[in-house]
Amino acid sequence: MSYKNYPMVSRVVFGRGSFNQLGDILAPKRLNIKAPFIFLVDDVFKGDPIISSRLPLAYDDQLLYISANNEPKTSQVDALVEKIILSHKDRPSGVIGIGGGTILDLAKAVSIMLTNEGEAKDYQGWDLVKTPAIYHVGIPTISGTGAEVSRTTVLTGPDKKLGINSDFTPFDQVILDPELTVGVPKDQWFYTGMDCYIHCVESLDGTYLNAFSQSYGEKALELCKEIFTQDILSEKEAQDKLMMASWHGGMSIAYSQVGVAHAMSYGLSYLLGTKHGIGNCIVFDHLEEFYPEGVKLFKSMKEKHKIELPQGVCANLHDDEFDIMIDVALGLAPLWENAIGKNWQQVITREKLKNLYQKM
Amino acid sequence: MSYKNYPMVSRVVFGRGSFNQLGDILAPKRLNIKAPFIFLVDDVFKGDPIISSRLPLAYDDQLLYISANNEPKTSQVDALVEKIILSHKDRPSGVIGIGGGTILDLAKAVSIMLTNEGEAKDYQGWDLVKTPAIYHVGIPTISGTGAEVSRTTVLTGPDKKLGINSDFTPFDQVILDPELTVGVPKDQWFYTGMDCYIHCVESLDGTYLNAFSQSYGEKALELCKEIFTQDILSEKEAQDKLMMASWHGGMSIAYSQVGVAHAMSYGLSYLLGTKHGIGNCIVFDHLEEFYPEGVKLFKSMKEKHKIELPQGVCANLHDDEFDIMIDVALGLAPLWENAIGKNWQQVITREKLKNLYQKM
Repeated sequence: MSYKNYPMVSRVVFGRGSFNQLGDILAPKRLNIKAPFIFLVDDVFKGDPIISSRLPLAYDDQLLYISANNEPKTSQVDALVEKIILSHKDRPSGVIGIGGGTILDLAKAVSIMLTNEGEAKDYQGWDLVKTPAIYHVGIPTISGTGAEVSRTTVLTGPDKKLGINSDFTPFDQVILDPELTVGVPKDQWFYTGMDCYIHCVESLDGTYLNAFSQSYGEKALELCKEIFTQDILSEKEAQDKLMMASWHGGMSIAYSQVGVAHAMSYGLSYLLGTKHGIGNCIVFDHLEEFYPEGVKLFKSMKEKHKIELPQGVCANLHDDEFDIMIDVALGLAPLWENAIGKNWQQVITREKLKNLYQKM
Repeated sequence: MSYKNYPMVSRVVFGRGSFNQLGDILAPKRLNIKAPFIFLVDDVFKGDPIISSRLPLAYDDQLLYISANNEPKTSQVDALVEKIILSHKDRPSGVIGIGGGTILDLAKAVSIMLTNEGEAKDYQGWDLVKTPAIYHVGIPTISGTGAEVSRTTVLTGPDKKLGINSDFTPFDQVILDPELTVGVPKDQWFYTGMDCYIHCVESLDGTYLNAFSQSYGEKALELCKEIFTQDILSEKEAQDKLMMASWHGGMSIAYSQVGVAHAMSYGLSYLLGTKHGIGNCIVFDHLEEFYPEGVKLFKSMKEKHKIELPQGVCANLHDDEFDIMIDVALGLAPLWENAIGKNWQQVITREKLKNLYQKM
């Protein structure tokens, strides 16, 4: 058996206010004054002094505000790359993503596609990227996805929702500044935090588990419980700890996998465009059969924080639409194998998935 | 305030038997057939098939067995570098350290000194290294030191025991194969495991603590407790988990510091050559005043595993020898500031340290 040679984030800064160090961090990475830094920033920060007035823009640097209302698409990556190439004669010095999982994944994908030919969809899969990406920096402004530490960048393409999994995907630099998460709306905070909680449950319950993934997953899960089930933390402590939960939760996937919730949630996202965090919650809420304890605790956290999940999102779907979701979900073989075992195909039937989707 | 931009290990493989992947990992890193890989291997493995017959030696690669009976010295680094330079016309393709903290620290230091002028002692301190090290790989064969993940390489020099702390120190590649720890003698297993336990206690109890260091330190401490206080783990599970405890314990120091035990243990090592693991244990056993709960649990683990610590190691020392140890210990200001706070000099007197050393 061969184990993955896992590429880690090269450098990390952690601390409240550490975002102020971005200028100093970028300065030595500027190739020349015509090779700009490209800042991809969640458009909720447009005009918000917490980010916009603190960006260390210089020379021909380009600031692009991007909506994170939809899941990131391969076509969106291609459009961004084209826009950047047309705006500058020189290849950029780097790409800086500032936002949640959507923006971070876009930043990773754009940095790869600036040095690799063809379209982003050509690279959806495992280890298809041949040329190193340009320097890229991730700065999360919401905690839970693990996108800041992972070696994937999940994208919806014309044929599938699948990541660009490669050794060149991880960020060269991450800045973990919990202060940046201060304005996150409560429902978003919950859904994205639950992304971390759910992938820890899936990782820890999976057949791929090993001591590496277990140690990260257990710590992240413990932090989630501290944050979402207890009332002992100050607001700042909870922000700090959720940022670390996201970091460790992302690492817990390094040598394991996610499971049923992620597989089915990918189906929802692909068909309905449901955002990843809330999609995971909608699915996980109905997975008692697979994760009895995890779902029970999830329901109690949902109640504690007075979160109302959308109901009936699949109520008016036709059979062919269910088929599309089921195809996407079943296409993610490693997730099912992790969740159920090698004989998962005997257990997970199309009928079973349809029944589950119909409840959502 | 400015936070460290922490350089992480670039790549990590985890898994039982993953040592077999070393050849595949090194192959693309070979610069040319005259640029050898240098293997620095603990001499306990001389003739032991677990390592020696599995080393992927080729071309002019050089295998150097090194005794880990003494703490690593700057003069030893200089001698190794000279030997390597005199043996090969080309600069090596890389250095591979296979062993415990001593060998790993030597491998890191040699890889730095192959590209930096002068002597190793010139670089003891913080951020004095200017040129990137050559490619270096760390493969621990005993768990606990955290040397596989840290940005330092602790060395005893002519004037001081102090690390080469730099952004170029961390390994480019780490292979975590718990199978390699199978032959560790019980007392070594305990002392080195306790190095991890003790630096977690020091980090978690310190004034420098933050959510980053806390999350890693708590997980490592929890794993140590599982391994050393309970009887529920199989031998393999315990090996796997102790390797992860060491990894997380090393990261817990990234944004914090060690404390009283490490400061005083450096004094012992400097004067008496006491090895780091056992030295920490000898010191920590007398630190109830500073770490009451941690020391209590330490004593119970010592008893459970029937470990007899050396007694009276300072019994026949003269005043000038105590002074040397006290000077070394007091020279480590950040450790004291972490342990006691900014006004540590009012609390930690020479007399107090002498009294403590006299008990050991």
